[in-house]
Amino acid sequence: MPDTALRRKRSGGRAGNATRRGTAVIDQMPWNPPINIDRPVEPLTDEGIAAIHDGAMRILEEIGIEFLNPEAVEILRGTGGCDINGENVRMGRDFVMEMIAKAPSAFTITPRNPDHAITIGGRHLNFGNVSSPPSYWDMGIGRKVTGTREMCANLLKLSQYFNCVHFVGGYPVEPQDVHASVRHLDVLYDKLTLTDKVAHAYCLGKERVEDVMEMVRIAGGLTDEEFEASPHMYSNINSTSPLKHDFPMLDGWIRLARRNQGLVVTPFTLAGAMAPVTMAGAVAQSLAEGLCAIVLAQAIRPGVGCAIGTFTSNVDMKSGAPAFGTPEYMRATQMTGQMARFYGLPMRASGVCAANVPDGQAMWETSNSLWSAVQSGAHMVYHAAGWLEGGLIASPEKFIMDCEILQHIQRYMDPMLTATGPDDIALEAVREVGNQGHFFGIQHTQDRYTTAFYQPFLSDWRNFEAWEAAGAMWTPQRAHQVFRDIIASFEAPPMDDGIRDELAAFVARRKEEGGAPTDF
Amino acid sequence: MPDTALRRKRSGGRAGNATRRGTAVIDQMPWNPPINIDRPVEPLTDEGIAAIHDGAMRILEEIGIEFLNPEAVEILRGTGGCDINGENVRMGRDFVMEMIAKAPSAFTITPRNPDHAITIGGRHLNFGNVSSPPSYWDMGIGRKVTGTREMCANLLKLSQYFNCVHFVGGYPVEPQDVHASVRHLDVLYDKLTLTDKVAHAYCLGKERVEDVMEMVRIAGGLTDEEFEASPHMYSNINSTSPLKHDFPMLDGWIRLARRNQGLVVTPFTLAGAMAPVTMAGAVAQSLAEGLCAIVLAQAIRPGVGCAIGTFTSNVDMKSGAPAFGTPEYMRATQMTGQMARFYGLPMRASGVCAANVPDGQAMWETSNSLWSAVQSGAHMVYHAAGWLEGGLIASPEKFIMDCEILQHIQRYMDPMLTATGPDDIALEAVREVGNQGHFFGIQHTQDRYTTAFYQPFLSDWRNFEAWEAAGAMWTPQRAHQVFRDIIASFEAPPMDDGIRDELAAFVARRKEEGGAPTDF
Repeated sequence: MPDTALRRKRSGGRAGNATRRGTAVIDQMPWNPPINIDRPVEPLTDEGIAAIHDGAMRILEEIGIEFLNPEAVEILRGTGGCDINGENVRMGRDFVMEMIAKAPSAFTITPRNPDHAITIGGRHLNFGNVSSPPSYWDMGIGRKVTGTREMCANLLKLSQYFNCVHFVGGYPVEPQDVHASVRHLDVLYDKLTLTDKVAHAYCLGKERVEDVMEMVRIAGGLTDEEFEASPHMYSNINSTSPLKHDFPMLDGWIRLARRNQGLVVTPFTLAGAMAPVTMAGAVAQSLAEGLCAIVLAQAIRPGVGCAIGTFTSNVDMKSGAPAFGTPEYMRATQMTGQMARFYGLPMRASGVCAANVPDGQAMWETSNSLWSAVQSGAHMVYHAAGWLEGGLIASPEKFIMDCEILQHIQRYMDPMLTATGPDDIALEAVREVGNQGHFFGIQHTQDRYTTAFYQPFLSDWRNFEAWEAAGAMWTPQRAHQVFRDIIASFEAPPMDDGIRDELAAFVARRKEEGGAPTDF
Repeated sequence: MPDTALRRKRSGGRAGNATRRGTAVIDQMPWNPPINIDRPVEPLTDEGIAAIHDGAMRILEEIGIEFLNPEAVEILRGTGGCDINGENVRMGRDFVMEMIAKAPSAFTITPRNPDHAITIGGRHLNFGNVSSPPSYWDMGIGRKVTGTREMCANLLKLSQYFNCVHFVGGYPVEPQDVHASVRHLDVLYDKLTLTDKVAHAYCLGKERVEDVMEMVRIAGGLTDEEFEASPHMYSNINSTSPLKHDFPMLDGWIRLARRNQGLVVTPFTLAGAMAPVTMAGAVAQSLAEGLCAIVLAQAIRPGVGCAIGTFTSNVDMKSGAPAFGTPEYMRATQMTGQMARFYGLPMRASGVCAANVPDGQAMWETSNSLWSAVQSGAHMVYHAAGWLEGGLIASPEKFIMDCEILQHIQRYMDPMLTATGPDDIALEAVREVGNQGHFFGIQHTQDRYTTAFYQPFLSDWRNFEAWEAAGAMWTPQRAHQVFRDIIASFEAPPMDDGIRDELAAFVARRKEEGGAPTDF
């Protein structure tokens, strides 16, 4: 049921953006994370929900999950609710349900700019940039290349620039020209100075996690107590499917849970490879792997915010390659949404594709995945802008094309589109025009035409001849131009000089100390 | 609610296609028009439905529609339910509701191959090819050109070839190398010999309508009585918005209604141009224009099958150009779906875009429109394959790209994807693999891998390097190759020689008679 009251008013963000709009490269929508007013698409019956729940619970009760981290095992042992055999941990459904009931149904993450706080839960829908591709492609380079810090920074600038990107995920491309021991320091410095949106830490060793928490604390000008009072950042961990959680992921998970930061667990269960070939089986396994991590978090700090993620898709059974944005992917996402509501947990989904370049295939696969995230009631949508080649390539053109779709979704959720008051039904306007003439010139149209319809920044609605005369540019060519214009005119969000110096000093000190250990 | 019983079994079609598949250019899905198992997306509350209904009824009651056809006016006068003032016809809501209640909630159209019968109504979802563009674009030509009979025939071949195209709309491109007086004869001859799916007649003068009905009758080997016993073809009329129905459209409508053929009325109400700038107002006007045509049809032949179409979109308020696949378009389609269910009428929607070439924009606009058709519960989706430039260009590459999305939708509606029986939950498979290894080799996977997942015919799921080594072909390039391969190997469906001769003789005789009059 639509409810206009659901739509939050964020006059600060709106006003700020309205002010900036005059000099903007494009005329984009203001910051305003959408409220999902649609009823979710729910392919499962109540019996179907019960069957998947029973499957997930029997995996946890009868088969167990390996926790490859002694500290995690000891924490779970301490609950008194688990059967532990070495690294294998089994837990009964009553215990699981009791523990996950401690997790809130919604939580807010507040970055250094509190106007860019996001709520994970309820009907809130938040989009994040592509995270973690090792490679990069743009139309200027014209081939797949290894990611660099400059490419990473440019994608961070896009993440800040676009109001429809609500949080900043992992590295938008891995800057492989920066040594792995100090990469987190340089990228987080860039992320925290080039953006003021919610940031993410990788769970890849205690030094990285602790360094990032400290840098987010410094960037926010927070005391330790203030930092821990509510989430200011988050991490996402993946299980090692089937049925394992590895050491560094669990180590980071424990550290963030202790400090009350946002936690997202996303099993990567490709049906037919790391999970059953049947979608319900893959979803059940994914839930089992995710829920037991949330049990661990609640054992550490009852009430810490946790979201359950889905990355259930299928493989191409000819080649074993992962497929994304398929019909199976859409249904798995919707099913996971139903299960997340059953468990009372916020949910994460993704915007993904298997395409190698930002072409038609990229757009139908990405559209399928983004809309299925909407239909599932997901609260965080990772990789929502910039992802190609199953996550192996980041592309600025793809980023900008995806942002047009994200703006579609944002506009689609505006209750104004389906309002039915007397001025919307507009009988008097119809009477005025009657059986002749047109509506362009009448007052009812004049009063509304500037805001009545979505205005694209990338779609070209000119006819063929006008489009041809303007250069006959296909979508990715136009996106490339927008990319260059945004980067050329980018202005970083304001930051107190003292905080910037403190961040720089922290980075310098930690580099002197050697950063994080690497084993290569 | 999913219901596996809803899925029709069409063993004839399946079996036939399985037999043919061995020599096919691509490995496509069998003929099996999807059953829409999703609950529709319903942005309107009950109050919203009542408000739009009231708006539509007040337009009919207080403003009236111009029927620019004296015969139509006399038929409506004969009902005793209308207030008639010259060409302006007003009708009260009780009369309207009484008349449209005579229309069936579903009807079946049976083409010359009865295996390709389609049902318009219930949960049935049928896709048709692009109709009526004057121009053509393909990657071989590389520019926009005027349509010819050969281009039209090639697009008819694609319409027959693809099992996900369930009916054949108007001319897939206007063959402007055939004189307008005899164009309908040549194209219908091509359509009825190159395809065996449900065909369409344009309501453009009595000769064209009568000729096409006669040709469909001949092609089906039917007596006049058999032809009129149930629909064997259909037409679509557009109102001349605002609030008019023109002479030839009404003339054809009357002729088809008398002979019990399928009727679809689709007002083209662009919000801000031919309809109010507010979406609810544009939908209300569209409904008023559509419903009064259905009243006319039911006055002629109570119970004749009628569908209400929507083509409500918005214009670009900068240029006046029509926009397609926008957020406003999606919501208007969903709202119309709610209203169609309120009136108990089958519904038509479309697959559309404003893009000029088959690029990313074309795919996000088309995805938005096709999925909103699904979400609205539409039964006929026009222009679902091949449309560019707001309907001014037909493109075979776009046709083939769209068919990949149509197959996605078809597969998405397969209840197998969300089945939750014990074999789907697959606990024993999870137990067998345990915490190590993978699912590729186990029996549960081996038993299912050939049918478990959607297999694309156009999406390329190879990694970048393999894709690059194979020629680095972007989606439309691959689609162009598929197009050429299909045309090169196309085999027309079987037709009795006697029927073909009778069709050819009819065409020859009517050409001798001069075909249809033209006024230029």
